[in-house]
Amino acid sequence: MKMNNEKNNLTLGIDLGGTKIDIGLVDSSGIILRRELIKTNKNGPEAVVSEISNVVKKMQLPNETPLAVGIGMAGQIQAEAGVVHFAPNLGWVDFPLGSELQKQLNIPVKVTNDVRAAAWGEWLFGAGIGCSDLICLFIGTGIGAGIVCNGEMLLGSHNAAGEVGHMTLELNGPPCSCGNHGCFEALASGWAIAKRTKEVITYDSYEGKRFLDLIGGTQDDITARVVLEAYRKNSGIAIRVIDEVKAALVAGIANLANAFNPAKIILGGGVITSAPFLLDVVREGIAKRALKTTSESLEIVQPQLKGDAGVIGAAAFAVNELKRQQKNG
Amino acid sequence: MKMNNEKNNLTLGIDLGGTKIDIGLVDSSGIILRRELIKTNKNGPEAVVSEISNVVKKMQLPNETPLAVGIGMAGQIQAEAGVVHFAPNLGWVDFPLGSELQKQLNIPVKVTNDVRAAAWGEWLFGAGIGCSDLICLFIGTGIGAGIVCNGEMLLGSHNAAGEVGHMTLELNGPPCSCGNHGCFEALASGWAIAKRTKEVITYDSYEGKRFLDLIGGTQDDITARVVLEAYRKNSGIAIRVIDEVKAALVAGIANLANAFNPAKIILGGGVITSAPFLLDVVREGIAKRALKTTSESLEIVQPQLKGDAGVIGAAAFAVNELKRQQKNG
Repeated sequence: MKMNNEKNNLTLGIDLGGTKIDIGLVDSSGIILRRELIKTNKNGPEAVVSEISNVVKKMQLPNETPLAVGIGMAGQIQAEAGVVHFAPNLGWVDFPLGSELQKQLNIPVKVTNDVRAAAWGEWLFGAGIGCSDLICLFIGTGIGAGIVCNGEMLLGSHNAAGEVGHMTLELNGPPCSCGNHGCFEALASGWAIAKRTKEVITYDSYEGKRFLDLIGGTQDDITARVVLEAYRKNSGIAIRVIDEVKAALVAGIANLANAFNPAKIILGGGVITSAPFLLDVVREGIAKRALKTTSESLEIVQPQLKGDAGVIGAAAFAVNELKRQQKNG
Repeated sequence: MKMNNEKNNLTLGIDLGGTKIDIGLVDSSGIILRRELIKTNKNGPEAVVSEISNVVKKMQLPNETPLAVGIGMAGQIQAEAGVVHFAPNLGWVDFPLGSELQKQLNIPVKVTNDVRAAAWGEWLFGAGIGCSDLICLFIGTGIGAGIVCNGEMLLGSHNAAGEVGHMTLELNGPPCSCGNHGCFEALASGWAIAKRTKEVITYDSYEGKRFLDLIGGTQDDITARVVLEAYRKNSGIAIRVIDEVKAALVAGIANLANAFNPAKIILGGGVITSAPFLLDVVREGIAKRALKTTSESLEIVQPQLKGDAGVIGAAAFAVNELKRQQKNG
């Protein structure tokens, strides 16, 4: 009986990225039982739906039909309708991903953005277990957050809560992709680190040449990861850039701590993963910059699920959506 | 029977300010039935407790014992314990206001900060009725917010959520009272407007003299209200200062809109009350600066309760605290 019960709580979690699609069968304790990785088909959303559907059909055993499918992907998602409003990586516009895949698989399909999915994973099965006031903040190519308040994932009035990447931190700061100036993302994201370094080596051609010698490459090889490596090797240029990034990280995270007063902030994403020393920088900075009442008991930790967060989180999100729908009739 | 039932739902709301104490008997629909206003006794918290207690005892009829007393006051409050950790206006430190007044009155006393109390009032009985994702933002001498997420007042892990006055908007901006630089409060609050104007008239003595002639006073007469009046009279100095304030207001409120995705922002406080044109400035600015998904359906409105918000809100807060305690056993 127990076995059977467990089987009824299986969910499929899908991390749909620009280059690969990670599909996992996840049990109710967040364990991935089976997993398939495929390349993302670039021939449009219909081709992707068809490939996912084929893989999923092969993965399932007849007596293990999952309760639901959860999908996390980068972009603007209308979660209620399961519509991908805009997915810049893939060039999809207004595609009803949920209903199209549901037609193929005949089980409920729920769609959310990748950051929200990862936050679900960390909250229910990772570094945020049992925490009812939590921010999962990801500093990668972009910056995004999933926020738990009062024991519920914060959706906001139109499912857009957590868009903290475009928080202004410097009123007249560098331009951002969104059209504003001085956004968190324009100061501390992966793309901003690379862009700022390219600017600085142009201003200062002597130090610039030393920097390029150190990394053994050209301007085109400059990425956030390369700059963070150069920082560890005491490159003057990298120190100049990363010191600015540190200040922005501390200010941005202090703003979130003061506004939400979370018990825990899970700080992940590519920039943090490739420079874990930033965690201590943030911890020390927050103790000085955030208000005492919000900072003194705040824990700042790394994610636990790493590469599994997308799959586990998408599955957790889907389970919760089913529960929410049942609750709301 | 109906009368009797209504009587059982009376609550006392107290707005405890630095100069006056506003005490109201509030019914369950947020109507103030009786009201007393007294001067704030400056001889320490014990004297204030004693005076409040005397007034309250005279206000109540024998068959109308209120369910609870709610108090809102400026400062750092430990709401669970009813302790005033620090009240800068009054110089109180670590005073157990809740338990001391409760001893005198023999009914539960609940304490919160004045901004949170006003937010309770606007949410349950004012401009925020029925809204489950709401920010009440007050731009006055200081800046503070009460935030409703998913139909619940956001407390955060240590009851400190909503401290948005110290949100960094300009990394290397002007110094703030908190020790940081470029906080929302250091750019757009009442004290910041006065301080900035005094700086500007010192740099520019010709325009400075014209400004003082216009307001018919000296440096010491410069307040936010005076500067906003001069702005309406097209004073060059006031335009320079208020244009900076406008940019900070828009950026700060856009940050909150993007993070919380509220359906409504109630924008009040002395600065807004004395310059209601700022509401349209914020509405237009947010439409450009916040993300489309968060701004396109966002309503920005004025508070409705005005001078009654403190009393009605403190009462509403107390009722809700009782409910919450009953729910949590």
